[in-house]
Formats: sequence, structure tokens, C-alpha cells
Amino acid sequence: MPRPLEPVLARLDANRTAAIERWKELLRLPSIGTDPANAADTRRAAQWLVDQLRSSGFEASLRETPGQPIVVGHQPGADAGRRHILYYGHYDVQPVEPLELWHSPPFEPTLLTTARGQRMVARGAVDDKGQVMTGLEALRAWHEVHGALPVRVSVLLEGEEESGSASLEPFLNAHRDELRADVCVVSDTGMWDIDQPAISTMLRGLLYVELKLLGPSRDLHSGMYGGAVPNPLNVLCRVLGQLHDREGRVQLPGFYDRVLELEEAKQWAALPFDEAEFLAGARIKTPVGEAGRTTLERVWSRPACDINGLFGGYAGPGAKTVIPAHAGAKLSFRLVPEQDPRQVLVALEEFLEARRPPDCRFEIKTHGLSPSIRLPADSPYIQAATQALETVFGRRPFLIGMGGSIPAVEAIKRLLGMDSLLVGFGLKDDLVHSPNEKFELRCFEAGIRTHARLLAELARLG
Amino acid sequence: MPRPLEPVLARLDANRTAAIERWKELLRLPSIGTDPANAADTRRAAQWLVDQLRSSGFEASLRETPGQPIVVGHQPGADAGRRHILYYGHYDVQPVEPLELWHSPPFEPTLLTTARGQRMVARGAVDDKGQVMTGLEALRAWHEVHGALPVRVSVLLEGEEESGSASLEPFLNAHRDELRADVCVVSDTGMWDIDQPAISTMLRGLLYVELKLLGPSRDLHSGMYGGAVPNPLNVLCRVLGQLHDREGRVQLPGFYDRVLELEEAKQWAALPFDEAEFLAGARIKTPVGEAGRTTLERVWSRPACDINGLFGGYAGPGAKTVIPAHAGAKLSFRLVPEQDPRQVLVALEEFLEARRPPDCRFEIKTHGLSPSIRLPADSPYIQAATQALETVFGRRPFLIGMGGSIPAVEAIKRLLGMDSLLVGFGLKDDLVHSPNEKFELRCFEAGIRTHARLLAELARLG
Repeated sequence: MPRPLEPVLARLDANRTAAIERWKELLRLPSIGTDPANAADTRRAAQWLVDQLRSSGFEASLRETPGQPIVVGHQPGADAGRRHILYYGHYDVQPVEPLELWHSPPFEPTLLTTARGQRMVARGAVDDKGQVMTGLEALRAWHEVHGALPVRVSVLLEGEEESGSASLEPFLNAHRDELRADVCVVSDTGMWDIDQPAISTMLRGLLYVELKLLGPSRDLHSGMYGGAVPNPLNVLCRVLGQLHDREGRVQLPGFYDRVLELEEAKQWAALPFDEAEFLAGARIKTPVGEAGRTTLERVWSRPACDINGLFGGYAGPGAKTVIPAHAGAKLSFRLVPEQDPRQVLVALEEFLEARRPPDCRFEIKTHGLSPSIRLPADSPYIQAATQALETVFGRRPFLIGMGGSIPAVEAIKRLLGMDSLLVGFGLKDDLVHSPNEKFELRCFEAGIRTHARLLAELARLG
Repeated sequence: MPRPLEPVLARLDANRTAAIERWKELLRLPSIGTDPANAADTRRAAQWLVDQLRSSGFEASLRETPGQPIVVGHQPGADAGRRHILYYGHYDVQPVEPLELWHSPPFEPTLLTTARGQRMVARGAVDDKGQVMTGLEALRAWHEVHGALPVRVSVLLEGEEESGSASLEPFLNAHRDELRADVCVVSDTGMWDIDQPAISTMLRGLLYVELKLLGPSRDLHSGMYGGAVPNPLNVLCRVLGQLHDREGRVQLPGFYDRVLELEEAKQWAALPFDEAEFLAGARIKTPVGEAGRTTLERVWSRPACDINGLFGGYAGPGAKTVIPAHAGAKLSFRLVPEQDPRQVLVALEEFLEARRPPDCRFEIKTHGLSPSIRLPADSPYIQAATQALETVFGRRPFLIGMGGSIPAVEAIKRLLGMDSLLVGFGLKDDLVHSPNEKFELRCFEAGIRTHARLLAELARLG
């Protein structure tokens, strides 16, 4: 017998002021995960979340790691046969510097009134404390009304997301059975704009390598040797300069063989995307990239190759006439369905080997290797979230892509075999990681209502 | 009435022990020009040379500069109508680190006996104190025997050669009339081998630039923007990777238009050059470079282009997915007769501009710009030196090239309009700039005799 949603929504209305107060309590804890000076406050934030979960009917605990503790909550006596949701979020926040640019103290949450209504200004207002609270308030309301949730729910909140999630992977690995669920729900992404909800259905993957090209046995004087020996810097530029053709296509052998033409991409042309505004954010006027593709395709559904660093030889002031013994680069590939990062790595090795001059050799170190993530549009989870968002916002959500990866989502897929449903309520102008970070109250409250409805929709999947 | 050479040579024989003692005196002064702790010793070396010149009949003085003093000597009452020679050398030496690799203290000159005869081991043994003394001892013998020199001679000895000769150019510029002569004689170069003398008749020139490529207005996340904006690192590799074609020829427009096919280069094919040994010095097995040219041509008479440094983006440990706002390179061109460095710079600007993508621009800073130096084989100075060397060594000297530049020679050409005669007595294994620097006594003494004869040969030119 399904538990009705209506009294839950009524409870959300009744809880409105209290929810904002709870959110403020969490925001007041300066949980800057990277700063040892904030270690006690960071732990306090984790403990505060444990308490919140407990008061919403969860068995929750603070779990130690070599870094920040991880908060885990489960429902006591939850039916193992029911659909099982894992909420993922993080309670650590970015440092606040430069402090002088804040209009109010970053850990004194301040409600401001603007033309859009009220907004909360504080470090972590949206990323990710505000987004975490949208889920927790929904869980609380269901618990308060029904003493139970419509589906089985577990919660996983880490404290190292802003510094690379070093402890997450070992923790997931050590607790696979405990944490495995049917789907992960993540609120760390954004809306299209304040009126238009969005679901991020794909993330590009990443192959990140460091190359070292070794040539002469020692640094040489370019007067004595210049013109008669392989210069690793010349060679590096020549070889990496061939990574793209004139059409902007990556030249690794077989690079596009497994790249799919995605159904999702077809509807992106209809999105009200302002390409000029997007590029103007980097003061770029002319779109460039793979020929025959839109900018949205280029950043969401098409693979890309970027050199992220170059080094070798002399970089100090003035001149040094050196032919260095070696040169290096950091190089990354953004990958899309169904590219296999390991196959791309092999293709890169072939590409480099084919262009290697005599007496030179490449060394390759891998710093990251993750496939793209995609939740097909016909996934029941997408359909459930679409239904919830459309009811709350009065608009069908856009199904969008994301050019970057979310390491936690990738690790959850790889280690727990679970897809993630990415439904978030942030806006592009929320000043994430910057002074005066904010979250619109409209977004916060619509987020809570969406999560409350999503639980009901997920329950309907049976 | 020509003054006879024979008694001068006899005097050299008589002076043999004293000459070695004087050389040792100079070597004992630790004139490390770059080290402020050695300032007094460096000055003492300069003063010691002033005294030497005075005791050989010169009016000599120590001239102040913002850096180390410069020693200048002239002959009192020298006939302004006679052929005028300017000796150039330097009295500063390289630092001695790593000290633990020296078999004897670097400033305690030590005579060792080997299969080749005796050698002097000390910092500066050859570079350039030993070479300077080959000239000064010749001047001394002429003076002691005849009370005069067969030609008019001035001497210029600087103390900043090992650190970039910063004071030399302003000094030359301020004393053009005082220092201008018919030819400059420089002993800072080497022999072909211990039995075979050589004259360096050409030096490659240099254009050294620093490039900065500016793209997006700020560093971007390669996940968000990768594939849709110009990445300065990608662009830099693509553009610099086009500097050479498959034949190893530099692709700047008009780069080879003024390059001469040199007569000198034709005889180089007959030189007993061991290409494999030369390349093995850098553990290179396969000669590379401009197609259809020998290695000697590649390093002596053909222009070359080398990237000397690359920088931009992230170079620290691990991964950072950044598209940087800018990237840069140090880039140099070795130039040959009759290339004009300014024309090459203009061609480079055109080359870069033609390959610049929209929203990117190059900034170019010049760190060095000097034409190549060439003394034609039929120059009377080459003929005089050839005659002197052939008599002393019993072998006709090789006329060779040098791939690098000598800043003093370039400055003397540019500011005083004088060619330089490069006759030196160093060997490839002298460990210049390294621990256990040495100079073979055979080379030292043959050098003195060569300079004594050269003065007589120059006098014959009238």
C-alpha cells in the first residue's frame, strides 16, 4: 500500500523555516577539508550530519579514513527486496580566500533579498551543503510523516571531494557489499537556468598521461650540436603538433572507431544555448574545434585532446642555448561513449612510437583513466526524475551533458557497478569556489520538493 | 729594418721555466668572476696582468666597470701608421664545484706527467689564463730581446667572459677610438688535436627569442571547455612543430635565401672528423638534421633552429586538467653567412602570424641577435697565422668552423668593425669548465712560439 505524497509535501511547507535554520547550522561549521586548522570543524560537520540522519530515522555513523571521516547512514530494518537508493554528497567546502572579497563572513550564512527572491550567501551554500540538505530535508519529511521511506535509502557523505576524494575509493572498495544499491542519486550539478531544470545524463571520461621524451644523454650546447642531433623539445612539438588534423580531429589510430553518435545530442540543437556567452567567459570570440560539430557537442559528446602542461629546457629569465636531454608534457583526452580509455592509451603509445626519431624514446605515466558515464534517456531513473522535476518546475527537464568527469560518480560506477542519477539545483552564477557563493532559496526549496517527489516516483518503479 | 725572430725564439727557450712560474702565479689567484666572495682575488688577477704588461713594455691599467675591471695595455710611442693588433682574452674563470671531484686543489696549479708529456692541472689552466699567457709570453720575449714589438699591439683582457661579458660592450662602445685596431687576435679556441693546429674561420650567428602565446583570458577547466576553445599549448606545439619540414629544413619564409654555399665547407669533407665519436658524446647513434649535409656542415655552415625551452600549464606532480591562458617557448636560430638576424626575426613573425588561430596572439621578446662571423680563407691574417702554425707544428692548420658564437668576437666586429683571428691551443679533452681542467705543456709552449712567429708574420704584411 503506497504511502501518500501529499502529507509529505505539506510537512515540507510546515518545515520551511526550520529547514533554513538547519541549513544555516551546517553552513556555520567551517569544514574546509584541506586545512588542518579546520580539522575539528570538519569533523563537527560530519557529526552534525550523523545527528541529522539519526533524527530522520537512520542508523548513521561517522567512519574513520586516513583523511576526513565519511558519513554513512542506512535505514534500520529496510526490506532488502525493495529498490535501493544511495544518496551521495560531500560536506567539505573550498577555502574562502580571498577573504576581503566577501561581502559577509563566509561562515555566517546571510539571507539576501534580490529580484529573484531570497538567496543564502555562505561558503558551501550550494556546493555541496545546500544540495545535500535538499535530499536530507526530503528524507526527514517522509520520515516525520510516515515513519518510513517509500524506497530503501542509504546515504554516503564524504569530506574530501574538494581535495580529490583520496579516501573515497579505498572506502568504497572495502565496503562494496554495504554500499551497493540500485542507483546513486547525486545533487552536485546544476540547472539549465533558474526556471529550467536539467538532468545530466552523461559525463565525458578521461585519460590523463604524463609524457617524457628522452633524447641525448645530457644537456647539450645548441651552438656545438644544434642541427645535428635530435632536440627533444623540437621532437615533442613536432609529434604533439600532429595530434589534430586541420579539421580538429584527433589523429590517434582508431580514436573514433567506438565513438557513438548519441541520440541525446540531436535534441541539444534545440537547447537555448548561448554559444557566444559561453565562449565570452574565456574572452574567445570564434568557436574552434572538431569540424562539423556544434560547441555543445564539442564539450559534451565529442572526444577532445588537450595538452595540459609542457616542460623542458630553460624557462628562466633571458637566454640559455641548451638542447635538453629530455622534455615532457601532461596530456589528456576527454572520452565519450563507448571509447575505452585503455584502448586510447594503447593508440597513443602507437602514435608516439610511429613518430619517435632514432635515439629518442617516450616514457608514459598514467595519472587518470576513466571511461565516460552515460545514463540512457530511456532509463527508468531518468524517467522518474523527469516526472518529479516536471511536476515541481512546470517544465520538462533538459537532458544535458557534462564535459568534465565527477570522480565519485566514476568510482561508484567502477567499484559498485552503479549508475548515478545527476539531479542538481545549482545555477551558473552561484559563484561556486569563489567569494560570495550563494544558493537561491527558490532552487533550494524546489530541490527539496523534487527529492521528496523523486522518492515517490522511484517507489513506483517497484 | 726588420727585427730578427731567431733571438726571440732563443729567449723563449731561456724563459721556459720562468714562463711556467708566471703562469702558475696567475693560476693561484682564484678569480671566479661570478662569486662576490672572490671579488678581491679577481681584482688581484687583473692587477697581476697589468704588472705583467708593464714589465713587457706596455702602458697598462686597470679600468673600472660596473662589474669586474678590464685590463687595457698599449705600447708607448707606437707608430700610428703600423699594423695594429688587439689581443683579446679573459682572466676570470668558472666556479670550481663540485670540489670533491678535483684530484688536486683547483687553485694549486699542479704539473702532472702523462704519456703526452707534462700537463698543468688547475681551474683556468687553459680557459683562458693559459691561452692568455701564450700571447703575453710572446710579447715579453720580443720586448726583452728587441725592446720593441714588430707590429703595434694593444691588449684587452676582461673579467666577465664566463658570466656573459656584461661590461664589455659598454666599454668597447665608450672607447671605440682607443681600442680600434686592424685585427683582433683571440686565443680562446682549440686545436683539431694535439698534433694538428686549427684556425677557426667562422662562427655561426644567433637569433634568440622568447615567445608567448596568449589565448583564453584565464585558465580554463579542460572538462568544461576542452574541444571548443583554442588551447595555447596545443597551438604552440602545432605551430612550432611546423618549423622544420621532413628534410630538416627550416620553414620560415626566405630563410635560406641569403645562405651561402661556402668554399671552406668543401675542404671539410677531407677532415679526419669522427662523426660517430662526436655524436657518441651525447649518446646519439644516428646522425639527423638537414638532408644532404654532413654533420660538420650541419653544425658549422648550415643554419639550425632549436627550441631551448617550453613552458605553460601544469608541470607539478600528478594531474591538473587545465587549459592555460598562455604558453611560451625559448627559441633560437643558429645563423650562417650572409643571413641577417633581423630579416630572420621578421620571417619568424610572419611564420607565426600565418599560423595564429583566432583569439590568440604571439608576443616576441628578443634575447640575442647577432650575425655569423667569417674570415675568408684568403684573408692576409689567416695566411700569416697559417704560416706561423705550419712552422711551429710542421703541419698546415685546418681551417674549421664553430657552431656557437663568441659574444666578444661578435661585439668587437659590431662595435669596432674589426675581424678576429681565432688561433687557440686547447684540446677537446681539456675539461674546460669541469673539475681537473688542464692544459698540455706542449700546447702551451707551441702556443707561445706560434704567437712569437705570428707577430713577425704580421709585421711582413706591412
